[in-house]
Amino acid sequence: MVQPASRLILGIDPGTAVTGYGLVRSSGRRLELVACGVIQLGRVETGHPEKLKRIYQRIAGLIEEFRPDEMAIEAPFYGKNPQSMLKLGRAQGVAMAAGMISGLGITEYAPRKVKTAVTGNGNASKEQVFRMLQRLLKFEETPKYLDATDALAVAVCHAYQGELPAAQGKSGDWAAFIRNNPGRVVARNQAESDE
Amino acid sequence: MVQPASRLILGIDPGTAVTGYGLVRSSGRRLELVACGVIQLGRVETGHPEKLKRIYQRIAGLIEEFRPDEMAIEAPFYGKNPQSMLKLGRAQGVAMAAGMISGLGITEYAPRKVKTAVTGNGNASKEQVFRMLQRLLKFEETPKYLDATDALAVAVCHAYQGELPAAQGKSGDWAAFIRNNPGRVVARNQAESDE
Repeated sequence: MVQPASRLILGIDPGTAVTGYGLVRSSGRRLELVACGVIQLGRVETGHPEKLKRIYQRIAGLIEEFRPDEMAIEAPFYGKNPQSMLKLGRAQGVAMAAGMISGLGITEYAPRKVKTAVTGNGNASKEQVFRMLQRLLKFEETPKYLDATDALAVAVCHAYQGELPAAQGKSGDWAAFIRNNPGRVVARNQAESDE
Repeated sequence: MVQPASRLILGIDPGTAVTGYGLVRSSGRRLELVACGVIQLGRVETGHPEKLKRIYQRIAGLIEEFRPDEMAIEAPFYGKNPQSMLKLGRAQGVAMAAGMISGLGITEYAPRKVKTAVTGNGNASKEQVFRMLQRLLKFEETPKYLDATDALAVAVCHAYQGELPAAQGKSGDWAAFIRNNPGRVVARNQAESDE
């Protein structure tokens, strides 16, 4: 019998005030929380490049410490404020660069895609996502985990992608997806396909 | 007599279609063009992260080859299209990360600031900036240099910053700046202070 390959996935939710990270080990259908936390950036007063440097250094440090196999990043593509989007893009850029240097494959997921993968509902609240992660990763609620929710969620989302057939995500396969992953749909009538 | 310190400055103009680079050696008042060129990204079809990876790898390669002392980056802060700004921010982020890893000091300059430093006119056209760079750096016009104009200009802008008193750039010092840098003002009546 073939042993399912174990993969350590680093999930990153880049932001300019807080950047979250989550490390999830995926062994077949089994998921395990390895580490998670946040990189606090709000009180850095020395200008934006200093914040970017902190994001870069912390993520590079996490990669050196945990040696993940893959990187998944939560990446909103749309926003209203051009200047906020520029800053967010910079944070995404340095986070991705930290992965590139280490030769990690990097996959981006839109927030809606992440929520759908974890809860079955693209409009799930942060609390719904968090509660599902608790169940999937079997951890106790502690306040510091809340800020890392999106980073853990994108790591879990990526873990599921590798496990599913290539066609997963297309709306036609949604029924099969639910059949194969009953635990991942919070409420069947909330389920909707990801575009 | 004290020999003026020689600094090699890597100027970068990050963009998502073309990223320009220019290496300028600054020795006291003397400026020398060391290298310049562009990283073409327009035909990369494999998605945006692939483009970012190319920007990162090429800049990291330039740093390894030329060992610059400092990095200067042209960084527009404003734009109308949030999605374009996100992409630009990503390109800026990976370019800056490539400098951070090598421990380079990184300074950002707004486009207007760069034009003012090179030509004395914050609204100078690309051609005006290019002609002034030709004069300052003593090179022949070749088409490939045109795309690297902004990158060379930001390197020259940064070279001037180190040379000038800390107060330079404030409008009150503009008269003294013109006095001390007669060759850098294209047309006196076009001159205006950078905000």
